[in-house]
Amino acid sequence: MRLRFQVDINCDLGESFGAFKVGNDAEIMPYITSANVACGFHAGEPLTMAQTIALAKKHGVAVGAHPGYPDLMGFGRREMQLTSEEAKSYIIYQIGALQAFAKVFGVNLQHVKPHGAMYNMALKDRELSRAIAEAIAKLDLDLIVFAPPKSALAEMAANTGLRVAYEFFADRAYNSDGSLVSRKMPGAIIEKPDKALKRALRAVKEGVVEAFDGTLVELGQVHTICVHGDTPTAVKLAEALKKGLVKAGIEVKPVSQFI
Amino acid sequence: MRLRFQVDINCDLGESFGAFKVGNDAEIMPYITSANVACGFHAGEPLTMAQTIALAKKHGVAVGAHPGYPDLMGFGRREMQLTSEEAKSYIIYQIGALQAFAKVFGVNLQHVKPHGAMYNMALKDRELSRAIAEAIAKLDLDLIVFAPPKSALAEMAANTGLRVAYEFFADRAYNSDGSLVSRKMPGAIIEKPDKALKRALRAVKEGVVEAFDGTLVELGQVHTICVHGDTPTAVKLAEALKKGLVKAGIEVKPVSQFI
Amino acid sequence: MRLRFQVDINCDLGESFGAFKVGNDAEIMPYITSANVACGFHAGEPLTMAQTIALAKKHGVAVGAHPGYPDLMGFGRREMQLTSEEAKSYIIYQIGALQAFAKVFGVNLQHVKPHGAMYNMALKDRELSRAIAEAIAKLDLDLIVFAPPKSALAEMAANTGLRVAYEFFADRAYNSDGSLVSRKMPGAIIEKPDKALKRALRAVKEGVVEAFDGTLVELGQVHTICVHGDTPTAVKLAEALKKGLVKAGIEVKPVSQFI
Amino acid sequence: MRLRFQVDINCDLGESFGAFKVGNDAEIMPYITSANVACGFHAGEPLTMAQTIALAKKHGVAVGAHPGYPDLMGFGRREMQLTSEEAKSYIIYQIGALQAFAKVFGVNLQHVKPHGAMYNMALKDRELSRAIAEAIAKLDLDLIVFAPPKSALAEMAANTGLRVAYEFFADRAYNSDGSLVSRKMPGAIIEKPDKALKRALRAVKEGVVEAFDGTLVELGQVHTICVHGDTPTAVKLAEALKKGLVKAGIEVKPVSQFI
Repeated sequence: MRLRFQVDINCDLGESFGAFKVGNDAEIMPYITSANVACGFHAGEPLTMAQTIALAKKHGVAVGAHPGYPDLMGFGRREMQLTSEEAKSYIIYQIGALQAFAKVFGVNLQHVKPHGAMYNMALKDRELSRAIAEAIAKLDLDLIVFAPPKSALAEMAANTGLRVAYEFFADRAYNSDGSLVSRKMPGAIIEKPDKALKRALRAVKEGVVEAFDGTLVELGQVHTICVHGDTPTAVKLAEALKKGLVKAGIEVKPVSQFI
Repeated sequence: MRLRFQVDINCDLGESFGAFKVGNDAEIMPYITSANVACGFHAGEPLTMAQTIALAKKHGVAVGAHPGYPDLMGFGRREMQLTSEEAKSYIIYQIGALQAFAKVFGVNLQHVKPHGAMYNMALKDRELSRAIAEAIAKLDLDLIVFAPPKSALAEMAANTGLRVAYEFFADRAYNSDGSLVSRKMPGAIIEKPDKALKRALRAVKEGVVEAFDGTLVELGQVHTICVHGDTPTAVKLAEALKKGLVKAGIEVKPVSQFI
Repeated sequence: MRLRFQVDINCDLGESFGAFKVGNDAEIMPYITSANVACGFHAGEPLTMAQTIALAKKHGVAVGAHPGYPDLMGFGRREMQLTSEEAKSYIIYQIGALQAFAKVFGVNLQHVKPHGAMYNMALKDRELSRAIAEAIAKLDLDLIVFAPPKSALAEMAANTGLRVAYEFFADRAYNSDGSLVSRKMPGAIIEKPDKALKRALRAVKEGVVEAFDGTLVELGQVHTICVHGDTPTAVKLAEALKKGLVKAGIEVKPVSQFI
Repeated sequence: MRLRFQVDINCDLGESFGAFKVGNDAEIMPYITSANVACGFHAGEPLTMAQTIALAKKHGVAVGAHPGYPDLMGFGRREMQLTSEEAKSYIIYQIGALQAFAKVFGVNLQHVKPHGAMYNMALKDRELSRAIAEAIAKLDLDLIVFAPPKSALAEMAANTGLRVAYEFFADRAYNSDGSLVSRKMPGAIIEKPDKALKRALRAVKEGVVEAFDGTLVELGQVHTICVHGDTPTAVKLAEALKKGLVKAGIEVKPVSQFI
């Protein structure tokens, strides 16, 4: 049995686009340890990126890139068929843009977590996940890739020599095969803070989560817990999660400090 | 009198956008020493940026960023009123994106040259040129700024501690105040290779150019000569220029090697 | 003295862009009579346009086009220098796109009100306002143009044979020359519903508004009152305005019914 | 046996985007009878749309909408997963924008032909093709839909009461199931004008085309022949096609004149 538990809490931030405001970045910052910052393709633009990194730095939150498909109109949530070369170049471009702001603010990029449809497709699509992993590896081998255990993305990232942080979704219901229940299904989103906390505690300590149908899904070690910033209870849920984890003796800190 | 003359030849490249092809990048590469690469705002997208840097590397051509206004529909040639914060963040974003590709291909970014309306406005607008210079300086003090002598951009870049490469336009007519004759005027574009060469030789050796009205404009030292890639005689003009300069005993090489 | 007063209340709506939600369209609809619908350049996209027209139809609110500059990143609030041909074609494109949705939902487009920087520039720039007016007139001479009295836009619209609805801003402070106090100045936005109502009543009945410095600005006849949908008190202000105007015996209805 | 043959020749035009020039519109116009005009999503912008319609009118070429996915970076050639509501609204938006220019130039829109990946997906995807057909039908039942025979798009268009023009691709190789050989395969593009003409003559007169593997594909009646504008031999091929068809006694004219 492990004597000491450590976990990271990550959230998608910086998803505003100019006058189009999204999320509660300032309110949620105190309760997370890693920020996935949008890079201008599915959301985010330069000014928002700068402000988000400044905010993260102020709160001691680690910063990562959250690259997505070039589909602002669909918020990067629609599947697009890219060639590997296109996918690679889009990843490099977006990480590079964010790295520049990180440099200006004197922080290091910690991780990369693909967004929306790119993330979902990369879980199963080995060609896409290989392209993503190779692009990241070529740019900076110190970047940590966020991915669910057993996903193609996790495998390809490991194959290229990148560290992988296994991700658990505290506010989403799971299918028995370890995939997430579609957002379109009732009950897909877990909005009750105490329920999310209970699941997170079990995921971190026991490495399992109870699926929708009651079966237990093996997660293995959980490195980072994803919370969403745009649900009605987002801030409360994040707060409950962080405080509850700490209270349970779990160290909550950026994943780069313990992976 | 100087015993040894050195000059750089720069050209805007990588201005295709996906299936929209612009310019003759592969043909003009042999005759230039610095490439100003579009960064996705007024032109260029990630795949083109990668290909352009690969091509430049192959030809030993130094690479610089060519950031522009977020106006693909107007090719960055239309004036836009940005706040200083917007301008700074747009510059950082674009340079950062290009730096990532440079890193992947193992080359260093040499310089920054703003594009189109941003360049033209920065020649006189001290607030804009200060924003541009500060953004570049914060990101990387080794980047060289391309600007005409006596421009606000040159002054602000120097003020922030950046090196400035004074630029001469071989294929454009000059007004007596040192500004370029508007493209809308007849005779604004110099298409004849031998005429452009003659002007370039005089600019490099004597530091002067004959204006439209016959007066002589003082240029001071010329570090880099700009040629355009999208005119009918672009490739021939660049070839004549490079060969003519070399024949005249002038070393033609990337500006970072002698500034 | 006029025995019967009639006025329209207009508001900018449909400014969401996919997942980027803006405004309180459903809440403000009951209190307005004309909706200025964004057309995809500065805000709005096809799905939002369809939904906004459906919502307006349900509430008996007249629909107009709210075309802007192609600057999603700046929400169309930044000045851009367009040629007349560009401006004309952008106006035709945006109105046409909205007209298609209007046709599908069985409603007629009532009016056109340019957005943001395009509106502000058109107040003084006669070339731009002529281009806007000519584009509208070529497309449909029945469209009513919203503009402040004495503006270049009002004059050019009238010159091309278009009807002009003179606009009063209930929630904005005025300068003594009839222009609006810049949003950057304290006091520029009037947030108190009763104060806005008082000004609106005077504007409609007496054709004057008290400027920032206490002087009276002559407005002439006011046809339509603009309220903003994105301020904290927007819905309450619109409600107070409509109810207060009606209580004062003023008919509040779409401008096409009385102009 | 039919005594009289009539056919239309269509080509994708207006695919430039501002300074990004695509195609040889002016050169190919004399040899076609229907122009599929890009509407700003995958290519084209307002100024180009206006110029293309003016050019088509001058040549007596009928004008149709060529709507595509909102993917300028991929030229609308990449598959995107849209909901039916998104697809419908994108179709309405794009046709509406083009209709406005048609109205300004005093021409009627004749037809709609989806572009690139939207077209290819609609051939088999019944939900997508139903959405496209319903959007067109709601907007204007007089619009003719261009589609290959036996495609889902043709079926759904007919189901909604729209006329369908069956399309034959003169410059593309066919598979034995009637689909086109992928552009990535050698021999997919037929560049020789005389070969394309021979195939077109047989398609029009006999309603068949020889597939890649030598089998005969039944086409039924061919109403319109597609030629591409961006291949090296495009203009020559179009010229040979029109002249050859006319010489063979076939009337070449806009499809709305005989369908």
